[in-house]
Amino acid sequence: MQVHLNEDERIDQLYSKGIQIIQSKTVFSFSLDAVFLADFVRTTQHKTKQIVDMCAGNGAVGLFLSEKTGAHITMVEIQTRLADMARRSIELNDLTQQISVVNDDLKNASQYISKDSVDIVACNPPYFVNYQTSEKNPNQYLAIARHEIATNLNEIVSSSAGLLKMNAKLFMVYRPDRLTDLMTALRNHRLEPKRLQFVRPRITEDANMVLVEAIKDGKPNGLNVNRDIITYDGDDYTDEVKKMLYGTNR
Amino acid sequence: MQVHLNEDERIDQLYSKGIQIIQSKTVFSFSLDAVFLADFVRTTQHKTKQIVDMCAGNGAVGLFLSEKTGAHITMVEIQTRLADMARRSIELNDLTQQISVVNDDLKNASQYISKDSVDIVACNPPYFVNYQTSEKNPNQYLAIARHEIATNLNEIVSSSAGLLKMNAKLFMVYRPDRLTDLMTALRNHRLEPKRLQFVRPRITEDANMVLVEAIKDGKPNGLNVNRDIITYDGDDYTDEVKKMLYGTNR
Repeated sequence: MQVHLNEDERIDQLYSKGIQIIQSKTVFSFSLDAVFLADFVRTTQHKTKQIVDMCAGNGAVGLFLSEKTGAHITMVEIQTRLADMARRSIELNDLTQQISVVNDDLKNASQYISKDSVDIVACNPPYFVNYQTSEKNPNQYLAIARHEIATNLNEIVSSSAGLLKMNAKLFMVYRPDRLTDLMTALRNHRLEPKRLQFVRPRITEDANMVLVEAIKDGKPNGLNVNRDIITYDGDDYTDEVKKMLYGTNR
Repeated sequence: MQVHLNEDERIDQLYSKGIQIIQSKTVFSFSLDAVFLADFVRTTQHKTKQIVDMCAGNGAVGLFLSEKTGAHITMVEIQTRLADMARRSIELNDLTQQISVVNDDLKNASQYISKDSVDIVACNPPYFVNYQTSEKNPNQYLAIARHEIATNLNEIVSSSAGLLKMNAKLFMVYRPDRLTDLMTALRNHRLEPKRLQFVRPRITEDANMVLVEAIKDGKPNGLNVNRDIITYDGDDYTDEVKKMLYGTNR
């Protein structure tokens, strides 16, 4: 499959999944967050029919997920340029039958996807509160992807909860720095956290990411905090991360 | 110092701290939770003047803390038999000048300790929700220490917040199972979680304890998730835990 590439774009491959992704240094490139999130999502062979990739960016999470499920995946992305990159990556991987893209504000997601119809929402959202004073990337594409400029945690969680069926699941990657915001927002929107996994750069360091699984209308508590993911062993990726990236721990 | 021992009581020693504690299999014995909590508490040489050990049990946490601070420690314990054990352990260690015991419901703590006067509250509370159906220890002493029979998380956090000065700290050990309850209760009572540390039996297993540090009227977020504590290496304690228990990693 041939697709058009803009001047600043390149095609990267996630070897572990055989997926090719259109990336751009000046617009958006996926990072380890997306790889960890896709790995963290648990699909069910026959039950998982509808997946939403919320705040999809260039589509990395949804593209990675396509390898472990036959479910239909809808990507929701507000930035037109990023949604366009995602659409071309879907073509590039010949996945137009499985994946579609909604280029709109996630607040309007229920205009495209029925409420209470989704089995899984996966979300790699902007992490940073948009304080007046906070230093933001002068590149508007990256600023919107990282800071709560176009949306915020409450809107993301609220929209996700609205789309999910009862007992269906939200999977999200976030910053431990805002874990209290995350857990209170989830519970406030009928999403009960059931599983956490922290990611640390090195085994003795503070966590720099957290993965959370929450169930819509789940009973309170019963939270499991799984073993950590450690990113580096010295200056090299750990075997676990190598496996997620390359498919082997070579 | 000679103190009276009841029939079912023995004296245990925490070698790392040179502290002797009156224990009883049928009433209450401290466990690793108390050791981890005391180690997790950060005192400040000159600033820490008043510490409260909330839900003190037989006084283990307060006794351990006496080794790292000159601050006055007030233990609050509702069970008369346990408060009596704590008082005798204080005598046994010749700490009556530094530690006092309040034998009352923590709801009444502000009748003994001024509101907004405390620098640190340390708390090893009952962990389990007192469901009608939940299996409780037929031993009432142990049941009250483990289940929310005499108090509950909201009361504990509310009483603690009331006693603490502005910017003073609560340190608590809890179960990851109820982490969402804990974090929402803390924030609801003006206590912002600033540091978490999880404890796992083994490095690949789910966490079975969580330590939390929260600041009264602290700014939202800025939470650090510290490296894990691992309890066992094979069937033996890890060096880190040995050091907390014995003072050396022999």
